[in-house]
Amino acid sequence: MHIQEMLSEAERTGQPSFSFEYFPPKTAQGVQNLYDRMDRMYSFGPKFIDITWGAGGRQAELTCEMVVQAQTYLGLETCMHLTCTDMGEEKINDALRRAYKAGCTNILALRGDPPRQQEKWQAAEGGFQYARDLVSHIRKSYGAHFDIGVAGYPEGCDDNKDEDQLIDHLKEKVDVGATFIVTQMFYDVDNFLRWVGKVRAAGIAVPIVPGIMPIATYDSFIRRANHMNCKIPDRWIDIINPVKNDDVAVREIGKTLVAEMCRKILAAGIRHLHFYTMNLAQATRMVLDELEWMPSPNRPLKQALPWKQSLGFGRRDEDVRPIFWRNRNKSYVKRTQDWDEFPNGRWGDSRSPAFGELDAYGVGLTGTNEQNRKKWGEPKCIADIAHLFVRYLNKDIEYLPWSEAPVASEADLIKDDLIDLNKRGLITVNSQPAVNGVKSSHPVHGWGPPNGYVYQKAYLELLVSPAVYPEIRRRIEKHPDLSYYAVTRSGNLETNAASEGPNGLTWGVFPGKEIVQPTIVESVSFLAWKDEAFQLGVDWARCYEDGTPSRLVLSEIMDTWYLVNIVNNDFHEPRTIFEVLSDLKVPNLDMVPVPRTNGSHPPTNGVEASTAPQ
Amino acid sequence: MHIQEMLSEAERTGQPSFSFEYFPPKTAQGVQNLYDRMDRMYSFGPKFIDITWGAGGRQAELTCEMVVQAQTYLGLETCMHLTCTDMGEEKINDALRRAYKAGCTNILALRGDPPRQQEKWQAAEGGFQYARDLVSHIRKSYGAHFDIGVAGYPEGCDDNKDEDQLIDHLKEKVDVGATFIVTQMFYDVDNFLRWVGKVRAAGIAVPIVPGIMPIATYDSFIRRANHMNCKIPDRWIDIINPVKNDDVAVREIGKTLVAEMCRKILAAGIRHLHFYTMNLAQATRMVLDELEWMPSPNRPLKQALPWKQSLGFGRRDEDVRPIFWRNRNKSYVKRTQDWDEFPNGRWGDSRSPAFGELDAYGVGLTGTNEQNRKKWGEPKCIADIAHLFVRYLNKDIEYLPWSEAPVASEADLIKDDLIDLNKRGLITVNSQPAVNGVKSSHPVHGWGPPNGYVYQKAYLELLVSPAVYPEIRRRIEKHPDLSYYAVTRSGNLETNAASEGPNGLTWGVFPGKEIVQPTIVESVSFLAWKDEAFQLGVDWARCYEDGTPSRLVLSEIMDTWYLVNIVNNDFHEPRTIFEVLSDLKVPNLDMVPVPRTNGSHPPTNGVEASTAPQ
Repeated sequence: MHIQEMLSEAERTGQPSFSFEYFPPKTAQGVQNLYDRMDRMYSFGPKFIDITWGAGGRQAELTCEMVVQAQTYLGLETCMHLTCTDMGEEKINDALRRAYKAGCTNILALRGDPPRQQEKWQAAEGGFQYARDLVSHIRKSYGAHFDIGVAGYPEGCDDNKDEDQLIDHLKEKVDVGATFIVTQMFYDVDNFLRWVGKVRAAGIAVPIVPGIMPIATYDSFIRRANHMNCKIPDRWIDIINPVKNDDVAVREIGKTLVAEMCRKILAAGIRHLHFYTMNLAQATRMVLDELEWMPSPNRPLKQALPWKQSLGFGRRDEDVRPIFWRNRNKSYVKRTQDWDEFPNGRWGDSRSPAFGELDAYGVGLTGTNEQNRKKWGEPKCIADIAHLFVRYLNKDIEYLPWSEAPVASEADLIKDDLIDLNKRGLITVNSQPAVNGVKSSHPVHGWGPPNGYVYQKAYLELLVSPAVYPEIRRRIEKHPDLSYYAVTRSGNLETNAASEGPNGLTWGVFPGKEIVQPTIVESVSFLAWKDEAFQLGVDWARCYEDGTPSRLVLSEIMDTWYLVNIVNNDFHEPRTIFEVLSDLKVPNLDMVPVPRTNGSHPPTNGVEASTAPQ
Repeated sequence: MHIQEMLSEAERTGQPSFSFEYFPPKTAQGVQNLYDRMDRMYSFGPKFIDITWGAGGRQAELTCEMVVQAQTYLGLETCMHLTCTDMGEEKINDALRRAYKAGCTNILALRGDPPRQQEKWQAAEGGFQYARDLVSHIRKSYGAHFDIGVAGYPEGCDDNKDEDQLIDHLKEKVDVGATFIVTQMFYDVDNFLRWVGKVRAAGIAVPIVPGIMPIATYDSFIRRANHMNCKIPDRWIDIINPVKNDDVAVREIGKTLVAEMCRKILAAGIRHLHFYTMNLAQATRMVLDELEWMPSPNRPLKQALPWKQSLGFGRRDEDVRPIFWRNRNKSYVKRTQDWDEFPNGRWGDSRSPAFGELDAYGVGLTGTNEQNRKKWGEPKCIADIAHLFVRYLNKDIEYLPWSEAPVASEADLIKDDLIDLNKRGLITVNSQPAVNGVKSSHPVHGWGPPNGYVYQKAYLELLVSPAVYPEIRRRIEKHPDLSYYAVTRSGNLETNAASEGPNGLTWGVFPGKEIVQPTIVESVSFLAWKDEAFQLGVDWARCYEDGTPSRLVLSEIMDTWYLVNIVNNDFHEPRTIFEVLSDLKVPNLDMVPVPRTNGSHPPTNGVEASTAPQ
């Protein structure tokens, strides 16, 4: 989506909106941490994010990678920065091509800083001299595909303090095709508003997005302002200086001052703010909290679908997925990335294309063995493992091998039931409560456009011991509303589903739209998920030394238990599944396995034969 | 669908089912009447119908045509009879090809009677000698595409009374690929059951469908029984003979006897009966009534979708249509017959292929001017026309130019509101009440598989005078839940729809299935429907002499009024649309127009320019 459109939506609705800026970190670990942070900050509700251009080989490469990551896996609408510094036309074209292929539709075109070793900016050989030339080149090459932003300098530019000349340059950039302006950081709102007036007077009508730098520490605050030649109002200095050695106090005061400045900008009729996050969450979050812009029950995060959409190339219209990857969104995107088409409206025949093999896509358990042992301890029996699931449901731990994100708030509705199941050794991998038509604006279950109604069938996915599986199957098959699929690691699929076709699990009805059905259950994708689900457990088992109780108990589960999913087709009934499973208990919950030393195979032999996690 | 499958479903569920047999009539008017009758008898709920083979050029041609009509336009699963009589292999292949192209998947393979002029049956040159050869040929040519039935003779065959030999022949036919048996008519159930035992003893395991001939008049009863060498039980003669000159009494007694025989057959474990209708409805209907097999609130007609599906070639998966043709099903099928694909799951981009032009598909008003004047009288003012719509809603008349079938029973829910609108000159062309989730077995609104829930948004389509249109538009646009499209004959489209996309109007949620959304509203198909809707009115106007009040008032409406459709997107609210339209009245309802004689154009000029109805 073009940033222009988002800005005009904020304009039209009067609802303020905001965006975040990130830059390519220096280390691989830094990149991984940043991806996790960007993912968490998705839930702050930014309309889009910027990735700055990393001048020079590896860093430029990284910018392109980050754009792919943000668009494809994190579902963040991205604006890629692009500078003329050190970039010949071929390099520019390559970067644009990669942005295009990532599904990115927004570029911020900059001249860029001079390279470190040079003092004065100079065009690369065969490169562009001015941002204006870059804008013009992008327009010529890609027509209207990219929305193009340019930089505005309310307090002058590094090597040019002539405001009138800078505004002339700005006008030139807009005249050749730029459609929005993002300003450098500033703290002097009066000056900014004066400058906006002058820009408008010069006949520049495109939206202006103010760049806001939250205050993290006193040092960084001063250093960045100096670096950017940004004037700090005297009053700010007077207020902050007395506490400058107290980081907490600086952040508190800083947040108040920055929020105050944001309110003043809004009062002047500007509806969108761009935050320079410096790759950190806290300072920005504090400002958003202060402004009461963070998503909350009263201001729920607007989601088009109940799962996070990928904005990767060709994926924007995708609107149906199997529920199995609900807690492993990135893995699903990876394993389907080679599909030519993505299901839209109905799952239909999408089940025929193969899901990518686990190995090829590297979707196993992440983290080193040591990290994982630290995260999940050393469970010695089924009860210990079940206890981890209870802690996850209680939000005491954030991740499980089968869940890459903290438990969803909608699980609260059935939390007690889920905990009860785990305590009885029925390990709950995935679930959703039944919803019989709530408004699409509902803070917990809502998704999609306003004034709609959304629905869900109750769903539960479990790891089930062979000791209780036959009884569970018997009870499910006796109940007219329940359908199930069950499978072991070796792949014996059992089901009571009448047809091969998909079963719609989540759907929504909206004014002026076709019925949307974003989540389904069906057999072929369940078999693909089964491989992944058991492999994750095997990977986890291998975090522990051979012969240890942790490895033995996890291996036993992976080798002999069933993965079972249950749908209650009557979405009017919220508790049927739990009632059907009541009073069932897995035997020997507390039994710690002892490695066998005689000739008979230990229960871990399946693990021995399997490939090591990567 | 193969007849085998239908038979085994009846077997499995224990629910008795039945089918009807028709033959090609001699005259064109007879064909038209039969199509209408077959369409009405669709609502009796036959699982399939048979069309007998019309031996000889024109009649054979007609059989093929009737198969197309039944499959494509009437949505009746059809079994085409095919005989060896007078048919060379090329003719047989041609007939099979045509059946295939009609979407037909069932053939009853017969040797056939000898042609009239011959006494003894003889194969055509290069033709087949025995039904067995025909069965074998069909299997060889089409594999499993066609389900193939053959005739069984519980009372011997015309030219062969040797039961054992006939059963040997039957066995041969089954051995080369026949999968079900339909018997000749009989009234002697004991003998039939004895014969079935013998057939089974001979190792023939395929289902046997008894052929039942209801009793219409005494003469036809005796004549047909004699013609088919069918034994009438003495007790039947004793009971019927005393009233043989009283047609009504014969039918009454006949229905009781035939129903009794049907019950006896059922009691013996046979679940499907085939009725020889002789192209008439009454006698068969009386038997079905007596058996309590006619659809009723307690035994609703099972429909897969809220509209009648076409079973034409390539159309079986079609499951989305615009609502506009709800009362003009055949016209919709005709105008879309050249589409390469039919929408399935979502309307999506189906709106891009063009709808067939009216002229090319002959979808104008049917019937001669005289017939139509007789049907609809001579309305002289708006009130007269509105009164016809009121009579239609009251079921006093069966058709209107815009409705090819009597008003649907679900309109009863909003009948008073619709009548009230018409009385105020707001002419209601199409409508559906809101339904907020009723069981799919609901006798009025239900459709689709068992244990599902179905929903509808309220819909209303009207002809609206320009005198009240602006006020109606103003009121709709003020209401947040209503969306509308309005258009005049010349094509000025107005709407408050936010997007070009379709709006889902009817949907269903079923166990183990994706969400189904069979009806939508959208702009491109509304414009195609608009042409048809106004043309029907113009055709109607032209049933009256130029200058008559009927022609003037109808022409005035077609030339100046708006066709308006309104959707209430909140399907929880059943009465909003009527409330919004309350207290609006078209002025001059009773004014009879007078043809102008001066130079100014009469309001009929639009009609003058249009093409004549066909």
